[in-house]
Amino acid sequence: MTDRPTLLSNARSERVRQVAALGRRAARERTGRFLVEGPQAVRELLRYAAMHAQALYLTEAAGERHPELVSEAASAEVPLWWCTEAVLAAMADTGTPQGVVAVAQKVDVPLTQALDAVGDSGFVVVLTHVRDPGNAGTVLRGADAFGAAAVLVSDASVDVYNPKVVRATVGSLFHLPVSVGAPVPELLGACRERGIRLLAADGSGETALPDVDLTGPHAWVMGNEAWGLEPDVLALCDAAVSIPIQRAESLNLAMAATVCLHASGSVRTN
Amino acid sequence: MTDRPTLLSNARSERVRQVAALGRRAARERTGRFLVEGPQAVRELLRYAAMHAQALYLTEAAGERHPELVSEAASAEVPLWWCTEAVLAAMADTGTPQGVVAVAQKVDVPLTQALDAVGDSGFVVVLTHVRDPGNAGTVLRGADAFGAAAVLVSDASVDVYNPKVVRATVGSLFHLPVSVGAPVPELLGACRERGIRLLAADGSGETALPDVDLTGPHAWVMGNEAWGLEPDVLALCDAAVSIPIQRAESLNLAMAATVCLHASGSVRTN
Repeated sequence: MTDRPTLLSNARSERVRQVAALGRRAARERTGRFLVEGPQAVRELLRYAAMHAQALYLTEAAGERHPELVSEAASAEVPLWWCTEAVLAAMADTGTPQGVVAVAQKVDVPLTQALDAVGDSGFVVVLTHVRDPGNAGTVLRGADAFGAAAVLVSDASVDVYNPKVVRATVGSLFHLPVSVGAPVPELLGACRERGIRLLAADGSGETALPDVDLTGPHAWVMGNEAWGLEPDVLALCDAAVSIPIQRAESLNLAMAATVCLHASGSVRTN
Repeated sequence: MTDRPTLLSNARSERVRQVAALGRRAARERTGRFLVEGPQAVRELLRYAAMHAQALYLTEAAGERHPELVSEAASAEVPLWWCTEAVLAAMADTGTPQGVVAVAQKVDVPLTQALDAVGDSGFVVVLTHVRDPGNAGTVLRGADAFGAAAVLVSDASVDVYNPKVVRATVGSLFHLPVSVGAPVPELLGACRERGIRLLAADGSGETALPDVDLTGPHAWVMGNEAWGLEPDVLALCDAAVSIPIQRAESLNLAMAATVCLHASGSVRTN
């Protein structure tokens, strides 16, 4: 039997308020910490990035449903606090964390380290001006699923530590190197210096996806949901690549990213 | 110059209430009508299914931004009503219809008609128990983009006339035959009778996507977001197909559908 620390029951305590504050970007930037919500994302945090985990908060019901979280927190020496439902709800940013919240130190890595992961044949995703948390999360998930070496997120994109992004990645944020905060020209320049081919995903691109050689190191450069890639970003890329489609006006960002990343991944597994 | 009918300015009028009621499934089922919101979806309605359009509601600002909607409504003889912002907001189900709402008669077709579109080499998507409006809309959009012959939606799935689905399809609902309401076994039986191969999209399927012959007529059978395909549905399919992935636990429904539909479409365009 594990000794259970006192149950946190005061939803207005200083600790609860400090955790809840991490739902806001300013508090994340001040503290360098962020919220990880829900059993699946927390499980991946404990398995892949336990050294970043600062604290785990569980309701007793969630602890019974997910005993593996309790044991993994113990073996990683992550402090565990049992909470009432009210305390957990006060901490969480999203509506349904299913009784599980963790606080973690940010996991992003320097740009050079992310690019080191590309090697001779890897591929990366560059998010420029992507604003929707669900889209950013889906792209991270796709990058993870299809074996991207890293994800580079520009300074003008959504905060990857936004709880909605973290939830949408379902743990992928902890599986591969993510670099954040560099301006787009710096990101693209750093790729170019390393011989990483810059492929703009662009609905009106003149090169069709099946015609692109995806065997060498390359970066998929994704633009904003509404207006795509800015002309000056397009001009920095080596090719503008479109996905051949039959009828719909365009694919949305998450669909386009899924198809491009799947294509890059397929070349590597087949 | 078109004669402008009187501006609708009473947000509590019977007409406004009847339009707004179409945000609810019961009213849609009673009237056989549904809401189409936003300039892009309404434009596609007028271009591809104008005979289903019953009325177009516009703010004056939206009419100035989208004069093509005014002229297309006129040439299709769709009655146009100018509205105040308050009236339009009262009619709309979603937050931001950008001053454009239409009422249309349902566009779904009988199952046999949808299957007639498959022919000797087409493919369809079958949605079984898909509940999330955004996912259903994305799958419809992907079916349209990658050239599916039809979409078959089972009785236990989200209502395709839910305004959130309609918006997420961005007009694709009007581009290809959609059949709704049949139980899953009936849908799958009807496909089988016509020699349409049933491919279950299943994260743990034993057949890898690159190994599947997609040249003949086939159906992609998609399950629920959370629990996938039920065993009795899987048992009715010819193959359970998984997408090879590297790391993430699974792709979400919209991502998996995008990859499968893209694969089917690619075989037909390359």
